[in-house]
Amino acid sequence: MSVIHRHRVSPWTAIPMDEAYSIIEEETDALDSEKTPVWRVKIGDVLAEDVNSAYNVPEVRTSIKDGYAVLASDSPGKRKVIGFSTAGSPCNSTLNPGECVRVSTGAFVPDSATAVVMVELTKLLEHDGSEELVIEVNGTAKDGQDIRLPGSDTSKGELLLEKGSTIRSAELGILLASGLQLVNVCKKPKVAVMSTGNEVCEAIRPRLPIGHIRDTNRPQLLALCEQSGADVIDMGIVEDDEESLVQAISTALSISSVLISSGGVSMGEKDLLKSVLSEKFGFKIHFGRVFMKPGLPTTFATGEFLGQKKLVFALPGNPASSWVCAQLFAVPSIRKLRGEHRIWHTRMSAKLSDTVKLDSRPEFRRGFIERKEGEILPIVTTTGNQISSRLVSLRGAQLLLELPGKSEMSEIPAGSIVQALVIDRL
Amino acid sequence: MSVIHRHRVSPWTAIPMDEAYSIIEEETDALDSEKTPVWRVKIGDVLAEDVNSAYNVPEVRTSIKDGYAVLASDSPGKRKVIGFSTAGSPCNSTLNPGECVRVSTGAFVPDSATAVVMVELTKLLEHDGSEELVIEVNGTAKDGQDIRLPGSDTSKGELLLEKGSTIRSAELGILLASGLQLVNVCKKPKVAVMSTGNEVCEAIRPRLPIGHIRDTNRPQLLALCEQSGADVIDMGIVEDDEESLVQAISTALSISSVLISSGGVSMGEKDLLKSVLSEKFGFKIHFGRVFMKPGLPTTFATGEFLGQKKLVFALPGNPASSWVCAQLFAVPSIRKLRGEHRIWHTRMSAKLSDTVKLDSRPEFRRGFIERKEGEILPIVTTTGNQISSRLVSLRGAQLLLELPGKSEMSEIPAGSIVQALVIDRL
Repeated sequence: MSVIHRHRVSPWTAIPMDEAYSIIEEETDALDSEKTPVWRVKIGDVLAEDVNSAYNVPEVRTSIKDGYAVLASDSPGKRKVIGFSTAGSPCNSTLNPGECVRVSTGAFVPDSATAVVMVELTKLLEHDGSEELVIEVNGTAKDGQDIRLPGSDTSKGELLLEKGSTIRSAELGILLASGLQLVNVCKKPKVAVMSTGNEVCEAIRPRLPIGHIRDTNRPQLLALCEQSGADVIDMGIVEDDEESLVQAISTALSISSVLISSGGVSMGEKDLLKSVLSEKFGFKIHFGRVFMKPGLPTTFATGEFLGQKKLVFALPGNPASSWVCAQLFAVPSIRKLRGEHRIWHTRMSAKLSDTVKLDSRPEFRRGFIERKEGEILPIVTTTGNQISSRLVSLRGAQLLLELPGKSEMSEIPAGSIVQALVIDRL
Repeated sequence: MSVIHRHRVSPWTAIPMDEAYSIIEEETDALDSEKTPVWRVKIGDVLAEDVNSAYNVPEVRTSIKDGYAVLASDSPGKRKVIGFSTAGSPCNSTLNPGECVRVSTGAFVPDSATAVVMVELTKLLEHDGSEELVIEVNGTAKDGQDIRLPGSDTSKGELLLEKGSTIRSAELGILLASGLQLVNVCKKPKVAVMSTGNEVCEAIRPRLPIGHIRDTNRPQLLALCEQSGADVIDMGIVEDDEESLVQAISTALSISSVLISSGGVSMGEKDLLKSVLSEKFGFKIHFGRVFMKPGLPTTFATGEFLGQKKLVFALPGNPASSWVCAQLFAVPSIRKLRGEHRIWHTRMSAKLSDTVKLDSRPEFRRGFIERKEGEILPIVTTTGNQISSRLVSLRGAQLLLELPGKSEMSEIPAGSIVQALVIDRL
């Protein structure tokens, strides 16, 4: 297409954020699941079914303390030690009045015992040089004292983990404790990431020709998508011509469910992404601009390719824009594809350390938090100049502040409470 | 050692949490670093040096908009288009009054131009069928308008990333943008993880003998340490006898900087860890009990092995205890070993959804948060019965509530504000 036919004003309505979120949620469907041995389930995997306990925990009565299994009906005083039950070596001798069995934490409690007395409340009276023979118990024991009943931690059939749960270290243990051998786990989405632009060079080149830039978007997006649970595919840098784009996009779509590109979506003569997606692939552009800052030209398209539904996030080329928009749109979509039930970033309140000027568009400023004595809310400080070309504005970002567009109010004063999305470890 | 010689009351003072934290921080030294090519730096790596920008970004004046480079001194009206500068194909024609050069976002702005006018404020007047010849500019341009000056995003020599920074997706891009080829990255600590106990079985066994339990601690601790940046080594399950323990600990210490075990530290006759560490390895037990719940018998020891300092976290065997204590003690130690400057979990305020009864010891209850309309603080709900044997009390935990020990106050009423450590994605 010749430059003389280009649009001089964007034909795309800048839609509000909420509408963009809804469209993405609606167009994203969870992928299939597959049966997986529980010992191959990994951190970050998502369960595609509820997990219930196959048995009681504990299965038998066990001791809560290191001590002695006794009859609660016995009075304080001497006890003959008739055996010992350690975790792994159960003893089920029958207790007569005045007798006890030594038990360790987690060990089987003999059926006839009615309480456990912890070792700290006992004294050794007689031994034969290697074994305890008689001990003394101080005080009386309450019926059932320090005995864990079968099923008291987890009962057979109890729901342990819900469908849609993400496996972290804690849940991995719970899954293994269930006694299940196989579990349905969601498949990971394959996500292809490409950068576009004739000026874009591999970041590792020591020197660049004048007017060229290092490609930092692609490594960032690959890392972010991988952390969010995608199986990522690096599609390299693609030149700004129709033929190169068509070829690269075809390759990407034939091996992935999601394509994330950066660059080529604004008003420049080389901004061909939208037209290539709609005209060459017949994809539906759900939106071509979003009323937000950074990221105004963010584009989202879906379509069929080789009989399967594909999602395309065509993000702006500026580094702050591509990363912020990937956080806001692509990360939740990846989470939904892989079956997570919690897909959107958690919102929290924080107190502004400095006054911020509002833009005409709703703005997502990058910020980090600090604790201050006497404040119950964390104090949020923005990462400096927020121009979308300034990559270092992403440094150390833990939050995306959700600032409203300018209205009667043109700034938010220091000390005000703002809403923010949590995008990293706090 | 025969059971008749065992301690009947723990000889270890239960030290306060703060003291335990200080000891661990003091005994943990950051490991060495190594030069790494920037393209091999991975998410989670920690920088062992400051990273400064090797050049200005942008290196030349570039356009902030898709539009036309003009002379700001020209009045509104016609402009002859004498060339075009796209990102990657710079044009440096000299502008005379009444002339302009078409530019795209990020493209080189000719030296003679003094402003950029965005395309939306222009009209195409004449073309030759494929190229623009004359355009019209509406309004006047301000001097310097929409031109990014050299070094305006990042100036040469500017500090980009501080020593001790953890590489996440954003920082990976910033590092690559620096122009550096090699960077000093901290080495990952090798962390060996073992479970102890004759009753402990591999979790994947379909059925267990009576009184035995599935080993869920070890997979949990391995996952948690790996997530925290350790290079983990699985040491399996070790039996509760001195010889087995000595052999397993020797192997572990010869291949790791840190050993994390669970089980064998309480008052049972099979609780041999403390004595083996001090008597067989000559290690110093810095503490053998901590005044906390869960995790009272938590043990921390250090010593020299094969000429190198080693750390040992001997955690209690109950699943909630081992995981909570690993979060509180081992995770910060791993972070310090690998050079992170932020090693402790972030503390935040949250509002209790339900009344909680206080224990005599300070307690770390597991909780998860929810947002409630009209509340500025997140609402925290605990994960149910917190007995230390109840593994499911770790499910979905995002916070560890820091509850004080019982004093005049025996409970904290619903709606109170409590302090909590953030241990997972919010």
